[in-house]
Amino acid sequence: MDIKVIAFDADDTLWINEPYFRETETEFCQLMESYLPQHTAARELLQIEIRNLSLYGYGIKGFMLSMIETALTVSNNTIDISAVEKIIELGKALLARPVEVLDGVFDVLSALKDNYRLVVATKGDLLDQERKLRNSGILHFFHHVEVMSDKQEGDYRKLLKHLDITPDQFLMIGNSLKSDVLPVLAIGGHAIHIPFHITWEHEHVDVHIDNPNFRQVENILAILPLLYATLP
Amino acid sequence: MDIKVIAFDADDTLWINEPYFRETETEFCQLMESYLPQHTAARELLQIEIRNLSLYGYGIKGFMLSMIETALTVSNNTIDISAVEKIIELGKALLARPVEVLDGVFDVLSALKDNYRLVVATKGDLLDQERKLRNSGILHFFHHVEVMSDKQEGDYRKLLKHLDITPDQFLMIGNSLKSDVLPVLAIGGHAIHIPFHITWEHEHVDVHIDNPNFRQVENILAILPLLYATLP
Repeated sequence: MDIKVIAFDADDTLWINEPYFRETETEFCQLMESYLPQHTAARELLQIEIRNLSLYGYGIKGFMLSMIETALTVSNNTIDISAVEKIIELGKALLARPVEVLDGVFDVLSALKDNYRLVVATKGDLLDQERKLRNSGILHFFHHVEVMSDKQEGDYRKLLKHLDITPDQFLMIGNSLKSDVLPVLAIGGHAIHIPFHITWEHEHVDVHIDNPNFRQVENILAILPLLYATLP
Repeated sequence: MDIKVIAFDADDTLWINEPYFRETETEFCQLMESYLPQHTAARELLQIEIRNLSLYGYGIKGFMLSMIETALTVSNNTIDISAVEKIIELGKALLARPVEVLDGVFDVLSALKDNYRLVVATKGDLLDQERKLRNSGILHFFHHVEVMSDKQEGDYRKLLKHLDITPDQFLMIGNSLKSDVLPVLAIGGHAIHIPFHITWEHEHVDVHIDNPNFRQVENILAILPLLYATLP
C-alpha cells in the first residue's frame, strides 16, 4: 500500500446522522397515523424518497420535500394543512441539530494528519455538510472537502483526477458498503468499512467482499494499526 | 494582468435562470390570489426566502420549501392542501427545465479554452447545477466545477487556495455585482460584470465601482477583446 490520500465519509462515519433521520421519520409517521400504520407510512416515504433522488439528490431538504409529498399522497390530499407546517418544523430542527462527532474520530485524525492528506468525501446538502464540518471541531484536519452529488464509480474517478492521484494511492473509509466501499474497490482503490448500527435501507447491500484492498473494522480506532503497518 | 484561471458564474451568465424562477414565482403568486395581491405575496415570499437562506442555502429545493412556508403563512394555515401539491409540481418542473445556454457562451469558451484554465464557480443545489452543466453541452470546456455554498470573500479565498493561484491570477465573470464582482475585487482579484436583464432582488446592489481590476461589458462576447489584449 502506498496510500497518499485518506478520504472519510462524513454521515455516520465522522458524526451521528442516520439515527436523527430515523427519529424525524418516526415523528413523521406518527403524524400519518390516522391514515396508515407507522410501518406502512415509512415504506411509502422510502419509495417516494427513492423516486425523487434523481431530482433532489441526497440531503435534508429533499427529505423534507419527500415527507410533504408522502403526507399528501397517503392522505389523498385530505390531511390537515397543519401537518405540512409540522413537517417543515421537523426538517428545520433536523438541519439545526448540533453535531455529535463519533468516539475515536478526533484521535484518529490527529494520528494520521501528518502522514496523509486527509479529505472528506460526502453526499448531502452542500451547506448542511459545511455547517456540520464547521461545528464539528475537526475541519482543520482536512485538506479538502468534497461534497459529491453521488458516490458511484464515475464520481470517484472524478475525485481521484481532481486529487491528482492514482486509485492505488486512495483509501476510502466509511459506513456504507454501497457508497464508500464497492465503487472504490471497483476502480482499484482501497476501502475500509466501519459498519454503523443503523443504515438507511437504500444504502443496504448484502454482499461478501473478497478483495485484498478491502478491510472491515469494528470502530474507527481500529484503522490505526492497519495503517501503521504501512507507514514508511 | 497575468490571468491564469477564468471562473464563470453559471446562472444568468452561462445559461438562463432567473426568468424561470420569476415565471414560477408568478404562478405561485396566482395561487395565493385569494389571500394577497400578487405583489404582496412576492414580497412575503422574498422575506421568507431570505430568512431561510442560512438554513437552506441557495437553489430550487430551498425555494420550494420557502414557497410552501409562504403559502401556510399568508393563508394562516387555511389554504387548501392542493396548493401544496401544486407548489411541489411547480418546483419539480423548474428542476426539470431544459438548459438554455446564453448567446455567445460557446464561442467565448472555445476561444479561451487553450489559453486559460476555465472553471465554473456557482451557488445553488449541487445536483441541479451538475445536471445543468451536463445538459448544457459546455461541460468539456471546464477544468473544474466549484459549487459554493456562498460567494463571499472567504469563499473566494478558499477557492483560490484550492486552485493554487494568487488573487492577481484570477478573473471572475458574472452577472451579480454582489456575488461575482465585489468580493473578488476585495481580495485583489479581477472581475468582469455582464449585467443580465433580470436580477434577483436579494442580489441587487447599487454601487459605483472604481477599481482598475474591474470591467463591465454588455454581453459575454465583449470579454474577448479585453482578454486578447493581455494574451502573451
